[in-house]
Formats: sequence, C-alpha cells, structure tokens
Amino acid sequence: MLNVGLIGAGRIAGVHATAITGHPDSQLAAVSDFIPENAEKLAAQYGSVARSTQDILADPAINAVLIASSTDTHSEFMEAATAAGKVVLCEKPVDLSLERARACQATVAKTGQPVMIGFNRRFDPNFGALKAALDAGEIGKAELLSITSFDPAPPPLAYVKVSGGLYRDMMIHDFDMANFIMGDLPVSVFAAGSSIVDPEIGAAGDVDTAVVTLTYADGRVAVIKNSRRAVYGYDQRVELLGSDGLLQAQNMLENTVVKSNTHGVTGAKPTYFFLERYMPAYAAEWAAFVNAVKTGGDLPVTLADGVAALTMAEAATRSSQTGAPVRLDAV
Amino acid sequence: MLNVGLIGAGRIAGVHATAITGHPDSQLAAVSDFIPENAEKLAAQYGSVARSTQDILADPAINAVLIASSTDTHSEFMEAATAAGKVVLCEKPVDLSLERARACQATVAKTGQPVMIGFNRRFDPNFGALKAALDAGEIGKAELLSITSFDPAPPPLAYVKVSGGLYRDMMIHDFDMANFIMGDLPVSVFAAGSSIVDPEIGAAGDVDTAVVTLTYADGRVAVIKNSRRAVYGYDQRVELLGSDGLLQAQNMLENTVVKSNTHGVTGAKPTYFFLERYMPAYAAEWAAFVNAVKTGGDLPVTLADGVAALTMAEAATRSSQTGAPVRLDAV
Amino acid sequence: MLNVGLIGAGRIAGVHATAITGHPDSQLAAVSDFIPENAEKLAAQYGSVARSTQDILADPAINAVLIASSTDTHSEFMEAATAAGKVVLCEKPVDLSLERARACQATVAKTGQPVMIGFNRRFDPNFGALKAALDAGEIGKAELLSITSFDPAPPPLAYVKVSGGLYRDMMIHDFDMANFIMGDLPVSVFAAGSSIVDPEIGAAGDVDTAVVTLTYADGRVAVIKNSRRAVYGYDQRVELLGSDGLLQAQNMLENTVVKSNTHGVTGAKPTYFFLERYMPAYAAEWAAFVNAVKTGGDLPVTLADGVAALTMAEAATRSSQTGAPVRLDAV
Amino acid sequence: MLNVGLIGAGRIAGVHATAITGHPDSQLAAVSDFIPENAEKLAAQYGSVARSTQDILADPAINAVLIASSTDTHSEFMEAATAAGKVVLCEKPVDLSLERARACQATVAKTGQPVMIGFNRRFDPNFGALKAALDAGEIGKAELLSITSFDPAPPPLAYVKVSGGLYRDMMIHDFDMANFIMGDLPVSVFAAGSSIVDPEIGAAGDVDTAVVTLTYADGRVAVIKNSRRAVYGYDQRVELLGSDGLLQAQNMLENTVVKSNTHGVTGAKPTYFFLERYMPAYAAEWAAFVNAVKTGGDLPVTLADGVAALTMAEAATRSSQTGAPVRLDAV
Repeated sequence: MLNVGLIGAGRIAGVHATAITGHPDSQLAAVSDFIPENAEKLAAQYGSVARSTQDILADPAINAVLIASSTDTHSEFMEAATAAGKVVLCEKPVDLSLERARACQATVAKTGQPVMIGFNRRFDPNFGALKAALDAGEIGKAELLSITSFDPAPPPLAYVKVSGGLYRDMMIHDFDMANFIMGDLPVSVFAAGSSIVDPEIGAAGDVDTAVVTLTYADGRVAVIKNSRRAVYGYDQRVELLGSDGLLQAQNMLENTVVKSNTHGVTGAKPTYFFLERYMPAYAAEWAAFVNAVKTGGDLPVTLADGVAALTMAEAATRSSQTGAPVRLDAV
Repeated sequence: MLNVGLIGAGRIAGVHATAITGHPDSQLAAVSDFIPENAEKLAAQYGSVARSTQDILADPAINAVLIASSTDTHSEFMEAATAAGKVVLCEKPVDLSLERARACQATVAKTGQPVMIGFNRRFDPNFGALKAALDAGEIGKAELLSITSFDPAPPPLAYVKVSGGLYRDMMIHDFDMANFIMGDLPVSVFAAGSSIVDPEIGAAGDVDTAVVTLTYADGRVAVIKNSRRAVYGYDQRVELLGSDGLLQAQNMLENTVVKSNTHGVTGAKPTYFFLERYMPAYAAEWAAFVNAVKTGGDLPVTLADGVAALTMAEAATRSSQTGAPVRLDAV
Repeated sequence: MLNVGLIGAGRIAGVHATAITGHPDSQLAAVSDFIPENAEKLAAQYGSVARSTQDILADPAINAVLIASSTDTHSEFMEAATAAGKVVLCEKPVDLSLERARACQATVAKTGQPVMIGFNRRFDPNFGALKAALDAGEIGKAELLSITSFDPAPPPLAYVKVSGGLYRDMMIHDFDMANFIMGDLPVSVFAAGSSIVDPEIGAAGDVDTAVVTLTYADGRVAVIKNSRRAVYGYDQRVELLGSDGLLQAQNMLENTVVKSNTHGVTGAKPTYFFLERYMPAYAAEWAAFVNAVKTGGDLPVTLADGVAALTMAEAATRSSQTGAPVRLDAV
Repeated sequence: MLNVGLIGAGRIAGVHATAITGHPDSQLAAVSDFIPENAEKLAAQYGSVARSTQDILADPAINAVLIASSTDTHSEFMEAATAAGKVVLCEKPVDLSLERARACQATVAKTGQPVMIGFNRRFDPNFGALKAALDAGEIGKAELLSITSFDPAPPPLAYVKVSGGLYRDMMIHDFDMANFIMGDLPVSVFAAGSSIVDPEIGAAGDVDTAVVTLTYADGRVAVIKNSRRAVYGYDQRVELLGSDGLLQAQNMLENTVVKSNTHGVTGAKPTYFFLERYMPAYAAEWAAFVNAVKTGGDLPVTLADGVAALTMAEAATRSSQTGAPVRLDAV
C-alpha cells in the first residue's frame, strides 16, 4: 500500500486526489499547500488530513509523494522528497529554467530514488493504442509524425506572463509525445511562432500559434502544431506515417449523436478541455506509477524525460526568437 | 443520505454496488443473496455487510432497496420492499410473466411507494443526447424510428432456456427505448424471428434473430432489429427520422485510432458488451434515482414503464409464434 | 457496335442517351417519343435523329432498344421490340399491373430475345462492393439485411396518383436490391405503411412512410425502410449482418469538407437525389448491358427479376392495406 | 467555340484531350508531339489529327493551345504560342529553372496574351468547397494551414533524376494550394527534407520526405507535409484553423462500404493516385479556362501564380540544402 503525501491543493491536485483514493493500492495520507486552508479543504473532501510539506516529508509512514504545487517549487520538492527517501510523481514541467531542472536531475540522481514526471498524455488510451500499434510493427518503420494540439481558448494574460511561454507551458506535452512515439530525441528544432489569436499575448512576449519541426539523426521528421484557440474544443490528434501505413489518433467526441439536416451532417464537438479529455489518462498514469513501485519495475516516464522535453522547449523558444533552427546539443 | 440494501450479489449487483458507493449521497448498508457466501464476498469488497433479505427489509435504517436478484424474485421483492416502506430500484424485467407483473404493479400501487425499473440505456449519454435533441425540436416531429441492438455472442444455452426468450430477455431494452423516444406506446406489434445463429437456440424454442415493427396510432412507425451475434462487438444504435432531419446515436468505439494500409482504413471495434458500453449509464441511472428521491421528484422510469415493455415483449412473442401482428390492447 | 433506338425522351431518357453516346461500343441511332417534339429535341442534343417507335422497331439496322417511356407502355414495347428481334433494356418497373407484367414475361419468353430491366442500383459502385464482399465470404453467411431508402422530398401529388403507390413506384428498387443481395426471394412480406409526411398522399390512398419485413425460407430476415422525405437529401444505405461481420454501404456525400465550430463537427449532405447519386450507376448499367450483348453472356438483370420485384410490391401493397403478412406464393 | 491545339501526347495530354472533347464549347483541332507517332495515336483516339507544333501555332483557325509537353519545353511553347496570338493553358510547372520561368513571364507579358497554369487541384470540388467556406467567413480569419500530400509510391529513379527534385516536382502543387487558400505569398520558407523512403532517391540528391513551414507577414503560418510513399493510396488533405473554427478537406474514398469484423471497422482506401482523384478537377479546370476565354474574364490561375509557386519551390530547395530558412524576397 502506498501512503501518499500530496503536495499542492489546486485543481490538478484534486484530479490526482481522485486517482489516489480510487486506486486499491494507494491512500491519501496527507495534503499540504502553500495556503493551508486549501490543503484543509482538499483533505476534507477526500477523507484525508492537512499537514505541512515539511511534516509530510519527515513522516516515515508516508512512502510516496505526489508534487502538484506551482512549477517554481517542483525542483525543490523533488530534491527534498527524494532526499527523504520517497518515491515521487511530479507534475510537468520539471522547471521553467533548464539549468535548474538539470541541477535537480543531478541532485535527485545522487539519492537513487525514482522520480516519475506527470506526462499524462502517454496514458491516454488513444495515444497508447497508437504507440502499441507502432511497436507491434503494424505500420512498419516510423517516418513522419504530426501532432496537432490546440487549446479551446487562451489562458488569462496573467497566467501567460508567468507560464514560461507557449513552448515550455503548452507544447512541452507535445515534445514529450514526440519522444514517446519516436523513441529518440531530435537533433534539431525549428520553431515558427506568432501571435495572431490575441495581440496582448504577443505584447507579453509570447506566441499563441506555433509550428515546430523536429528532425532526427536517421532522417525521420516530426511536426507539432499548437494554437491557443480552437473554438470547437480541445483538439488533440496524433498522426504517424510509416513505411507500411498511417496511424491516426483522433479526437474524443462529447457523444456519438449525428444530426443530418439541411445544413449538413453534424456530430458532437471534441471533449472540451484537458480535464474532460484526459481524466481517464490521469487515473491510468497513477495506476502505472503504483504498479511500477509495487513490482519494482522502471517508472514509465522519468526525470530524464522531463528534462529532455524542457530542453526541446528551450530550443524551440530560441528558434522562435531568432528565426533559425537550433541544434539540441547546443542547448 | 440513502442507506441502501442491495438484494442480489451477482455480476450486475456488483455494478450497482460500485454506483452506490461512488455516489456522495448513498452508501451500501447491506447486501443479501440467495447464496449467503456471495453476499459476504460482495459486501467485503465494498466495505459493507451481508445480511438476510428479511433483515434488510425489516431494518428501518435502510430506506432504499436495490433489487438485482434473479428475475423470478423481482415481483416478490418489490412487493415486500414497498410494503416495508422502502424506495426501490429494481432491475429489468419486472417479471417473465406479464400476469405476475401486473399483479405486482397493483400491489405496489397500494403502498404508494415509488419504484423505478432499471432500464439503464435511458441514461446512456448518447441516447440521452438524441432524446434531448428530439425534445428540443431539432428534427421536427418524429416519424420513423430504427433501433439496432446486437449482442456480441449468444448466451449459454442453459441461460436461453430460462430467459423467457429473446423478446422478454433482450429486446425488452429496445421496447423501453422505443417508449422512451416515441413518448407513447404502439398499437400493434409484428415480429419476424428465426434461429439462424445457433440451431440449438431454435431447438430450445427461442429465436436468435428478430425484426419487430411497431405501429403507432398517429402513423409513426418503429423497427427494432436484434441479433444474438455480432462478432465485431456490441452494436447499439438508434436512428430517428423526423420531419426536419435525422438523428443517429452511433456506437462507442474502443479507441479513436484509425489505421490506413493496403487493406483499407480501419478503426477500432465497438466496446465489447454491456458492461463496457453502459458502465457510465449505470452510474447515471443511480444518480437519477438518488436525485429523484432526494428532491421528491418523479422517478424517471416507473413500474408502469416496466410493465409496458413487458406487454410489448409478450405481444412480440405471440406475433413471432403466430406470424400475425398482435394489437397491444389484446395482450 | 450496338445501334440503339431510344424509346422515350423524358428526363431519364436523357440520362440513358448520355450513357449510350458515351460508350465506345454503342451509338444512338434514333429517338422516339409520344410527343415527337420531345424526341426531336433530345435527338438534336445528342446528334441523333427522331423517328417513330414503329420505324425504329422495323429498322433492321437497329439491333438494340432502350425503353424509357412511361410505365404503362413498357410491356407493350418490350413485346414489340423482342418480336422485332431486338435486345432490350427496359426501365423499371415492368408494369404497374402484375398480371400484365406476367403476360409480358410469357410473350417475351416465346421470342427468346433477352430483356434486361433497369434496376440501376445494382450497378452503384458502393452496393456492388458490398455484394462483392458478401460473395467473397468476407462476412460469412448473410443473416439480417436492412435497406434504408429515403427520397429528399415527396413527388407532386399528380404523380403520386398515377404512380401505383409507394411500394410499386419507390420501394420496388429496394425489393430488387434485397433480391440482388440475398440471392433468393422471400416467402413472406409484411408491410406497415402510413401517411405522416403529407396527409394529401394519404387522402390519395397512398402511404409516404413504410417499413417492410421480408422473411426467407432459411430463416434470414430483411427489413426495408422508405420515406418520401428526408430533408437532408437522398438517403440510400444498405446494411447486412452476417455470421462473421457487418457490411454497410453508406451515403455518398457532396464533398469531403468537414467544419468544426461551436455547433459541432459538420460534414456535407448526401448527394441530393437519384440523378446525382446514381449517374455513374446508369453508365455502368449500360456498360454491363453492352458487354453482355457483345460477349453473348447473360444479362445481369432479367425480366424475371423485374416481375419478382413487382410481385413483392404487390404483396406489400396488400399487406399494408390488410395489416396482415402476405405470402409471396399467394400473390 | 475554342479550336484547341494540344501540344504533347503523353498520359496527361490524354486527360486533357478527354476534357477538351467532352466540353460543348471546345474541340480538339490538332495534336502534336516530339514523337509524331504518339501524336497520331492520341489524335486517332479522339477523332482529331496530328500536326507539327509549328503548324499548329501557325494555323489562325486554332485559337487556343494546351501545352502538355515535357517541362523543359513549357517556357518555349508558351512564348511561341502567345506570340502567335493564342490563349494558352500550360501544365505545371512553368519551368524547372526559376530564371527561365521569369524570362518567360516577361516575354509573355509583352504579348498581352493570357496564360493559365494547370494547377488542377484548385478545381477539386473538395478544396474548392473549403476555399468557398473560408471566403464566406465560415471560420473567421485564417490562422494556421496544414497541407498533407503523399503519393502512393515513389516514381522511377530515372524520373526522380530529371524531376527537379521533390520541391519543384511534387510540392509545387502544395505551394500553389497554399497561395490559393491564403491569398498571399509567404515571406519565409523553411524546409526539412530527408530520404528515408528510398535511399537511392537520397543518393540521387533528392529527398522523399519533407516538411515545409511557410510564415506570412501578418503572422499566419502554413505547414506542408510530403512523402513519396503512402502505401494506402493518394493522401490529399487540407486543414485550416481559423479564428471561428476549423475546415478539413478529407480524402475521397474508393467507395462507401464499411466492414465490421473482429479486426475492427474497415472502410475503403483513398482513391489510388492523381488520375483517380483529380479526373473531375481536370474537367473543371478546362471548363473554367473555356468560360474565362468565352466571357473575357480573368483566367483563374495565372502565369504569375506559376512563377510564385516555383519561387517557393526554389526557396524550399535551398532551405532543405542549407538547413536555414530562406526569405522569399531573397530568391
């Protein structure tokens, strides 16, 4: 049984609390938050208790820690939790600073404690089925990967300003998806980004629309498209051309009803946003973490994976700013 | 808070136990079963206790009863539970005997206690969206309804023999779906059934393939197609032509991945069977029951609905045997 | 080279004229019509000449006749054309009177001349692909057939009054489709029809909405749904459940563009009506006729096929009027 | 009536001959080819005559010329034909040499004769419907365009060697499609290309897989994906994200039949290659040319459009070779 300390009590922490309490082999031992009232509220909702982060880390009865606090605290809490001998699942991204993330990786490595990074999309059943079909050889050798990832609406400007920018905040999921599917890191990153959805995002120094090309040592190519606004909902698709065929993971729809009338044949919209689309993925992510800990197996997403995606985000940010491709080994 | 006594500890009782314990306003107070060990096992799994049905009905702290025992006990337990002042949710069908079901309805009516029949498909989000679109006038007036309902594989012959036959056991869901969507009962039922999937089903006096036509007083028509075998999975579709358009509730698929190769463009199969397809519907059904009890509202599916569907099954059985249409008011 | 005399100069005759002149092995030798001006107009359009029907039949240089005149002249012209030694392609239906059609069949049989009936849908590439997949064993043994056939809008009332009724005029195509796919005639026909699209159709003694069930000697079942109005266009689908799977021939759409917005995901409507949907089928029908004549092979649709479909239409008409199923051998 | 001289008698010339002879306002006056026997053969097939190119250009009765000869002769024949006062439709590309194409454009401009370049995809009904929906404001302002364009199989190596490379030979269609939809030229082109389909293509100095990013002055972005091999057929899709929604032009399929079995739900493949997919587009292209000439309207695709696409191909080729983005105004 995993006795889990949950650090952070925001919206995504609630998602994880549901997964932790819903799994037969884990229980929510305690919740902490920078604002203690939030921790108390969440703890009450899930039949747990609020404690300080320090207490949680010091409690030998707590053997696992889930870090869902603000991004700027991730590195610090990963270091502290692994130093305290906990197994850790930490939300993405590792950090907004690549330098800090690398330092964290080095520090954690010394503890020998396993850390998993919460790239939940790897556990989406659709992307998982696509990856499984590829691994089973169903389309031969991978050649050209396309990832479409559009949010339904831009986040508040205040969020944009502290987010680290689209590449680190939003596309980082897609960088990890590319790594998950391609099974290797690209050698070069080219980013074309602009602000056409909301000029205020541009004024804040960020982009809201971006196309990133990844090139691989063996000639494979990947392209990622991001937009902060798709009015029809959360557009999350992956498409992979291989030597023997094409795999496409299409959107989940709100329901299967189709209406035919004089305007055409209309089906439901994609599920609205990440909570609707990826709720099963969060549960599957937690189950994979628990299973790996229980069986002593490798964690399915590592801190190295988290640093790799961040490195790609850093390269894309520089490319977007300079207009030139950036080699990953130069970042 | 509903304190629920669960009568029956088989597979479908487990589904209900999950719904009861997962709802914030209900708890599983006790479980009973004809075989006490089964009740104990299920109770242990859900943190409840096993008791006799008699004890459950006699306990004033238990205010709701969910009947998920074998069909031949439904009427008796509905009568006893309502006599004991419980609110009741009873699995379909009401009874295999229409006469017995009508007697039960009369007896229950005297208690004034509300009873809901578990036609779970009304709570499927897809059929619900179709019904909502119809009620919102999106396709004008309903004219021609088609229901496709195929099982993935025939049940064991032993089950077939005690099932009451395809019309009472399987198509009863579709009769209720027709009533749900059309908002009225048909005047006449014509059934064409045969045994072409498995000759042993025919030898046992049942059919495995059937097409039933329902005609309504106002000229509307409905057709229901059943087969005990669709090798690709559970095929559950509803299609309604109206004066201003067509609504189709299509199948849920196992995932959204599509593979294109030299053989064509292949998507996933429909979800395998009713547990995979209707799990969310069972939870929504329970939530609707709890909400109606809590708010004093009408139960969304009544004992009269259960008797109506059974009357249609009786008419279809007779029509299938005689080859002539049967008027509902003659049954 | 087939030298073709075209009898009739209406809309469907124009469709055939395009097929005849577009085929490398046939040419349009002459056109006749009850109204000579119509024949002249059509002939001019296709670089042919107008002549009387009598002349056409008497001309030994004309070896093939395509009958596209009004239904009440079909039998007479088939008899005269075969007596004159022509090979004949005649539009459906053979006749509105089953008695007359049978007499025609007997008369034609004595001439030994081959006659093909224009059930063009057999040559639609989609239905053809479905039939080919069935014949190739791709879904095992056929068990349950469903045909959906909705017109976009009711015909003028004047047409309805002389049409012979929905079963003979509209559903006759679907009866032939059932025969094409099932490869056998049903033993019994049950029709439930009503007039809910347009009460004037009902006042004229016809139905506008109908569901017909066909039962076969070996236990197979087929169901045909007709409506005179589907506001979204011509709805022409066939679905066949077999022991090893399901085949569905879906609608052709006006184009492949899909729009996603806040209202949902909207694709194009089905092609509007039979000219849009079946234009390639008319050309393929003619090519099949020419090829059979050229190679001395069997015509792919026979006069017997035309009489069979008409017999089913007669049975359905009686069933719809009496409310009882009608055996085909009793018609 | 357009009296058309067809220069070239290869496969694509045959496609144009069908369009010319099938249009009521044009006739095929003569055919020429570098190999006179080919011209004779094609002429015989379409009831025309073979003549020398010189004769055709000198014949005042021939008022239109369709150039479908090899690419290296396009510029010369456009110059000669316009000097001779003909209206011209010339197959793409204008030339493999951008310098030569620009010289041709200047020479032709002096004649004042209109020239249309055969970018047939603009006349595909699906892409046309997408463009019309955009122009009608159905998705607001265009923001992010994606073009997927995969051939079913690589061309012979001999062809690759003289083709000018993937960007000039294959992607040139997609550059024009981007110009057609975006209504403006990009400012910058970045190409990532590699040879992973067939190493011999790489050895010949070409790529077989490429992703090109186009950036526009107003912040819009477009991405084009090309592969020389999609084993499932000709994959031709366009997808456009706008401020109010998404438009997708999907593939045409061989038929609408869908088979469900234990392997999944399988539909037909895309139409095999450009002749199958774009045959209606070639006819529509010719009709648009005839209509513009007849009405004195502007030709829908100009020589300037042809030079623009070639300029983008040149930029992409350089970018692919250097690894750096190339500004269009620097080419």
